[in-house]
Amino acid sequence: MVVSTAPAALQAGERIRRLREAVVEAGLDAFVATSDESIAYLSGFRPLQLERLFAVTVHAGSSAAILVPALDRGQVRDAPDVLTRVSYEASSDGVAELVAALAGARRVGVEGEHLNFARSEALRAAGFELVSAGQLMDALRWCKEAGEIEKVRAACELVERGVRLVFETLSPGVTEREANGRVESWLREQGARAAHPLILFGERAANPHSEPGDRELRVGDVVCADLSACLDGYWGDLTRCATVGPASDWARDAWIVVREAQAAAIAACRPGISAREVDAAARQPVEARPDLGQCLHGAGHAIGLAIHEPPFLVPRTQTPLVAGMIFTIEPGIYLPGVGGLRLEDDVLVGPDGPELLSTPHPELLELSA
Amino acid sequence: MVVSTAPAALQAGERIRRLREAVVEAGLDAFVATSDESIAYLSGFRPLQLERLFAVTVHAGSSAAILVPALDRGQVRDAPDVLTRVSYEASSDGVAELVAALAGARRVGVEGEHLNFARSEALRAAGFELVSAGQLMDALRWCKEAGEIEKVRAACELVERGVRLVFETLSPGVTEREANGRVESWLREQGARAAHPLILFGERAANPHSEPGDRELRVGDVVCADLSACLDGYWGDLTRCATVGPASDWARDAWIVVREAQAAAIAACRPGISAREVDAAARQPVEARPDLGQCLHGAGHAIGLAIHEPPFLVPRTQTPLVAGMIFTIEPGIYLPGVGGLRLEDDVLVGPDGPELLSTPHPELLELSA
Repeated sequence: MVVSTAPAALQAGERIRRLREAVVEAGLDAFVATSDESIAYLSGFRPLQLERLFAVTVHAGSSAAILVPALDRGQVRDAPDVLTRVSYEASSDGVAELVAALAGARRVGVEGEHLNFARSEALRAAGFELVSAGQLMDALRWCKEAGEIEKVRAACELVERGVRLVFETLSPGVTEREANGRVESWLREQGARAAHPLILFGERAANPHSEPGDRELRVGDVVCADLSACLDGYWGDLTRCATVGPASDWARDAWIVVREAQAAAIAACRPGISAREVDAAARQPVEARPDLGQCLHGAGHAIGLAIHEPPFLVPRTQTPLVAGMIFTIEPGIYLPGVGGLRLEDDVLVGPDGPELLSTPHPELLELSA
Repeated sequence: MVVSTAPAALQAGERIRRLREAVVEAGLDAFVATSDESIAYLSGFRPLQLERLFAVTVHAGSSAAILVPALDRGQVRDAPDVLTRVSYEASSDGVAELVAALAGARRVGVEGEHLNFARSEALRAAGFELVSAGQLMDALRWCKEAGEIEKVRAACELVERGVRLVFETLSPGVTEREANGRVESWLREQGARAAHPLILFGERAANPHSEPGDRELRVGDVVCADLSACLDGYWGDLTRCATVGPASDWARDAWIVVREAQAAAIAACRPGISAREVDAAARQPVEARPDLGQCLHGAGHAIGLAIHEPPFLVPRTQTPLVAGMIFTIEPGIYLPGVGGLRLEDDVLVGPDGPELLSTPHPELLELSA
C-alpha cells in the first residue's frame, strides 16, 4: 500500500524548505519557531501552549524537528515527515530537548517577539548565539498563498453575518455584555475556533479596548462593533458602526472623517508602498480634526493565522508592501466622554492594487430608537 | 468633597508596597511586570496586549509607573495613585518610554517567563542589567488574599454548574464541538470573562489537549470534561468524567487509579511539602499501572488571575507549598486508541492542610446510552 502524504503536510514541507533557504541566506545555522502560529504554519499543528515549550527547529542543513510536551505527542502524527518528533516528560521544561534538537548549530535565529527571556538565557547558557530573526518567518507568513486568502475571505464572510446579527438584534436596554456574548456564541456555533467581539456603546467606545460591561444601550448612543473570528485557522476582523436614532452632529462629522481615512488607506495598499505610508494616509484626515477626537492607533495590521501579525501599519514600520499581504484597514476617531467610531475592512494587496476581502460598508447605520 | 480611593486601588497600592520590599531585598534597583495578570494584580487594570507593550515599573525607591499604549490611556484612570501614568503613541513601540520610566535603575528584575527576547535586548542595549526575577511577583501572587480565595471559589461554583449542564444535555450523536460550544456560551452568559471548555469523547480523550471536533458521542465512550471559567478576574478549573452506558473494565480500573491519585495529592497539599512531592503523590499510583495508560502531565498547577500559574506541580519544581496557595489537583491516565480519564478539583493550601474550593465528585458518572 502506498501511504500518501496529506496535502497540508506537503504544503508545510514546502514552507519548511523555504524557511531553510531564508536561514541559509541570513547566515544562520538554524531557526527556532516558537509562536503558535508559526508552529501551525510549519507543521499543521496548532499548540495550546500555556507554560509549556513548543518549537519547530529548522537547520540550515537537512534536519528539522517538532518539539512538544508528552501531553501533545499524540497530536503531531500528521505533521510533515521531514519533522523529527521530539517530546519531553513533565520532569523537564523542554529546554534540554530543544538544545539537543539544535545540536550542531551555533548562530540560531529566534522569534524575538515570542521567545521569552528565561528561555533565551537558557539557550545562550547552552552556547548558542541568538539572533532575533522573526522577520524570516514573517516574510514567509505575510505572503499569503491562494488557499490562505480564501480562508481569510471565508472568515470575513462569517464575521459579516455576525455583524448583521448584531445590528438586527440590538435595541435600547441590551447590555454590552449581552450583545457581545450573543454574537460570540453564534460565531462559535458557526464553527469559529475563536471569536473576539468587542462591541461598545456610547461614550465607552471612546476607549476602544474597554472590556464590555453592564452599560445598557441608550437612544443617542453610537455603537462601535468590532468583530473577529478564526475559521479553519484564519482570522477575519471587521468593524461597523451605528447610532441609535439619528446621528449627532459629532457622529455625522466623525464618520465622514473615518470613511475618508479608510478610503485613502485602502487606496494606498499597493506593492512598494511602505506600511508607514498606509498609516499616514489614514492618519492625516483624522489628525486634521482634533475637534472631533483623537487618533489612538495605527491604520491596521496584517492578519492571517494570527489576528494581529506583522507588518503593523504604524508610523514606525518601513516595511514595503508586497502582493499577497492581507491587512485590516481600520482608522478610528475617539472623543473622550462622547464616543468612538471606527471602520474596518480586510484588504488583500494585489499585484495591481487593493482587493477587498470583506464587503465594504461605508454607511453609518441608524438603528431605530 | 473628599474623593476616596477605591478599595481595589488601595489593595493594589499595598501589593506595590510589598513588591518594592521584595525588590529591595533582592538587591534590584527596579522591577518590570509585563504579564497581563501581574499588571492586573498591581494596578487593577487587565490589558489586552496583542503586539503592544504594557508594563508596571516599581523602583526600589519611591517611584512606580504604569505604561500603556495611547489606545488604553483612558482605561487606567482607576489605577492606584502611586502609579505614574505613562502612555505612548503608535509612532513608538513603547520601549523608549519604558526605558525612561526605569531611569536611575541599573539592575532590573523582569518576568523572564513573559518578557520577550526582542524587548529584553532593547532594554539591555539601553544599559540595564536584566535579572529573571518573576519569582518575586510569583511569591506575592501565589499567597492568595481572602478576597481572591472567595473569587476562585465563586469561579469553581460557576464551573460546577457548567459541568452539570454538560452531563444533563449530553447524549449520543452530539459532537464535541457542539458540547463545548454550548457550555462555553452558557458560562459567558453567566458572566465569565473567558471560558475554556475542553470536552473530549472516547479515544480522543487519550490526547488531552486535542481541539474539539466533529466526533459524535457514541455508546461505550468515556467523556472527559475539563471546564474552566474566569469570573471577576479569577479562574476555576475542574474536570469530571463519565461513560455512556456502563463503564468498560478499562474505564472502571483507570478511574480507581485516578481517584486514588487525586486523593493522595490532595492530602499532600500542606505547608512545607514541595511541589514535586505533591506531583509524586499523584504520579506513583498512575505510573504503577502502565497497562492502563500513561501519565502525560504533572499533578496540577496554581490558579488565580491566570488559569495556569506557578508553582507547577511537576517533578522539576522544588518550591515548598505555603498557606494561601491554590492548586488544581488533576491526575489523569491516558491510553492511546482507547480513552483518557482525569479528575480535577481546586484546592486551597490551608495552614493545617488542604481545603477544597470545589465540591468533590469522585464518582465516574454513567450517562444513559
